[in-house]
Amino acid sequence: MSLVYLNGQWQRPEEAAVSVFDRGFLFADGIYEVVPFYQGYPLEFEAHFARLENSLQAINIPNPHTQTEWLSICQTLAEGIANANAIIYIQVTRGAEYPRQHLPSNSLTPTVMATASAWTPPETTAPPVRVELMDDIRWLRCDIKSISLLGNILLKQQAAQCGAFEPILQRAGRITEGASCNYFMVKNGVLFTPPKDNLILPGITRDWVLSLAHQCGIPVEEQAFSVDDLMQADECFLTSSTREVQPVGFIGETAIANAKLGPITEQLAQAFRMSRPQGPALA
Amino acid sequence: MSLVYLNGQWQRPEEAAVSVFDRGFLFADGIYEVVPFYQGYPLEFEAHFARLENSLQAINIPNPHTQTEWLSICQTLAEGIANANAIIYIQVTRGAEYPRQHLPSNSLTPTVMATASAWTPPETTAPPVRVELMDDIRWLRCDIKSISLLGNILLKQQAAQCGAFEPILQRAGRITEGASCNYFMVKNGVLFTPPKDNLILPGITRDWVLSLAHQCGIPVEEQAFSVDDLMQADECFLTSSTREVQPVGFIGETAIANAKLGPITEQLAQAFRMSRPQGPALA
Repeated sequence: MSLVYLNGQWQRPEEAAVSVFDRGFLFADGIYEVVPFYQGYPLEFEAHFARLENSLQAINIPNPHTQTEWLSICQTLAEGIANANAIIYIQVTRGAEYPRQHLPSNSLTPTVMATASAWTPPETTAPPVRVELMDDIRWLRCDIKSISLLGNILLKQQAAQCGAFEPILQRAGRITEGASCNYFMVKNGVLFTPPKDNLILPGITRDWVLSLAHQCGIPVEEQAFSVDDLMQADECFLTSSTREVQPVGFIGETAIANAKLGPITEQLAQAFRMSRPQGPALA
Repeated sequence: MSLVYLNGQWQRPEEAAVSVFDRGFLFADGIYEVVPFYQGYPLEFEAHFARLENSLQAINIPNPHTQTEWLSICQTLAEGIANANAIIYIQVTRGAEYPRQHLPSNSLTPTVMATASAWTPPETTAPPVRVELMDDIRWLRCDIKSISLLGNILLKQQAAQCGAFEPILQRAGRITEGASCNYFMVKNGVLFTPPKDNLILPGITRDWVLSLAHQCGIPVEEQAFSVDDLMQADECFLTSSTREVQPVGFIGETAIANAKLGPITEQLAQAFRMSRPQGPALA
């Protein structure tokens, strides 16, 4: 049965509620994580925990749980899903405070919420999708995995209105990322992806794919590339926890790799499926 | 008694709660308004309603209430506060949806929340405060009064850590606004404030002060000014619903107007107090 963990209690999704004065609801004053579980085993749990810590530190919220406690919460949630193939969602906000005031008090108790949703890891590489090039209107701390996501939502909506799978965002001509994914391109056998800085989320799947590329002997450059570079790429794909490696066939009306699945994309997607976790998260 | 209006019901603050799957809580997918009431009468209610409409339109949420309905809700809340001097807070989110997904369904019912807090309109012009110059790291749709406010909160926290009353934000050397206020400067008898564009919130108090300046015969320029311009200003003040006209004495360590209350600032602060609403909001 699907459950919600909320501040130490296990609740049904329809009953789990927070105060309207929770700073997550009033100010987007919180952060989140998404951890994919494969038949009960999480991918890169320590990396997810480290990013959770970084996000919390960046906005000055103490981590309410140890790594072991977080893992236990996530595992319990995953076990409520058939085959324990689950996407675990974790959210921590600064807590509730009445009356509303921008500057938070120091003594608030963080609100902790976590939930699971059913998920089927892709069995084969998905067909190429079309993405839409759009201006990156978001803030300058995209490295924090914050719930302050209205910009991402608006961009996602606009892309969907264009019939696109995802936006691909550019800032001053440089590709950053998607609304909920990272991007890669291949040119002359070299794999490129934007470097980790304040303009992109440091994706766990992104890093996992980079390590797979190293293992496969594919040359990698973590460096900024332009819209023009992208339009002349040999291959393009996006990565996310739920999509793993998702080929891109069109950017707007421009076909990439003749809108077919490219060989390096396929190699990495296969390598990803082979590398899925098959054992406990922590030693 | 202080109350919360939530989706058609009147509740006590400690019992008012929303689903953890409300998109306001998960994605900051919503907007808000703040309306000051003076002894039961709102300042510029129609302007607040118009801005609420603009914010909702910008993020594709239908307005759940007419202007008359919103006024009725706000008035009922204000009457729960002593002397009906009240700050009314309104929030509308896209509604709740389970399980969590970035792209919203079309059929959601918006969540409507409103509450009041007690407030004492300033009796005299407040002493000048110190503000801290900081980089504006926020998104590029600051004209939407959205609840996606983590950037504002972080900037407010950092300013407070410097002992400052508010941040004063700059983007590429140009002054934008504060974390929850607009800024003005006076130079050679002319009143300057940044123009309404995507980089600032179109403040109702800002517009009210501009109309007062016109009435007082003070020349006004709505145009961008730089950090250098600001540092050489004769006077500087900020405006917000709760502070009306708040003099600024220091920007970082730099004194403005010898850190004293300047004559045009005082004239406008007085004019504001004289212009407070004393009658019904709508004809």
